[in-house]
Amino acid sequence: MLDRVLLIGSLYDFYGALLTEKQQVYIRLHYLEDLSLAEIADQFGVSRQSVHDILQRAEQVLLDYEQKLKLVEQFHHERELLRQIHESLIDISGPEPNPRLREIIRSVESLLDYERGI
Amino acid sequence: MLDRVLLIGSLYDFYGALLTEKQQVYIRLHYLEDLSLAEIADQFGVSRQSVHDILQRAEQVLLDYEQKLKLVEQFHHERELLRQIHESLIDISGPEPNPRLREIIRSVESLLDYERGI
Repeated sequence: MLDRVLLIGSLYDFYGALLTEKQQVYIRLHYLEDLSLAEIADQFGVSRQSVHDILQRAEQVLLDYEQKLKLVEQFHHERELLRQIHESLIDISGPEPNPRLREIIRSVESLLDYERGI
Repeated sequence: MLDRVLLIGSLYDFYGALLTEKQQVYIRLHYLEDLSLAEIADQFGVSRQSVHDILQRAEQVLLDYEQKLKLVEQFHHERELLRQIHESLIDISGPEPNPRLREIIRSVESLLDYERGI
């Protein structure tokens, strides 16, 4: 289930703006704020089934975009390469890295943190 | 005009798969293979105006996706940070970089070359 949460979170981060406003709200409440379907249904005065259907449709839209564009897959691949570069820099820097190398490591870290992270 | 070519090429690289097949073919012929509208019209036995309209519509679709998602903008921003990291690594490496640093520089370069480049 956690994998599913991470996957949908990642897809939402890239393609969320292509969903309807209602789809966006439900996805955020369920996947980012961890509300149950029943809680969301309560909050909007709709049936649990209706929340379920809207979420399922929204997830399918996100998955369809990723299947066509593969941008999330590519992003995670590049991120992994960057993580390896970071590790190697730490490796060669030793306990007392020179200030310029430390600066470079910080830049790589800021790139790794760069929002969109899941 | 070159800026326009780079922009559309970049957008196509990210969102091209969301265009119709005909839109994709016309974009590739005009922007990547540099055929004129008249040449494309000739090749498909249609009017120059029709090619113009299809291209204009396709470009608008690409621009609309970018306006919503900003993925190309973000990509170029991250790429610029990576370029600065590469430059700093070259700076500190000197004329005889140690083999591990040289290896890291190569990894950064492979990340910079990573396809999607325009």
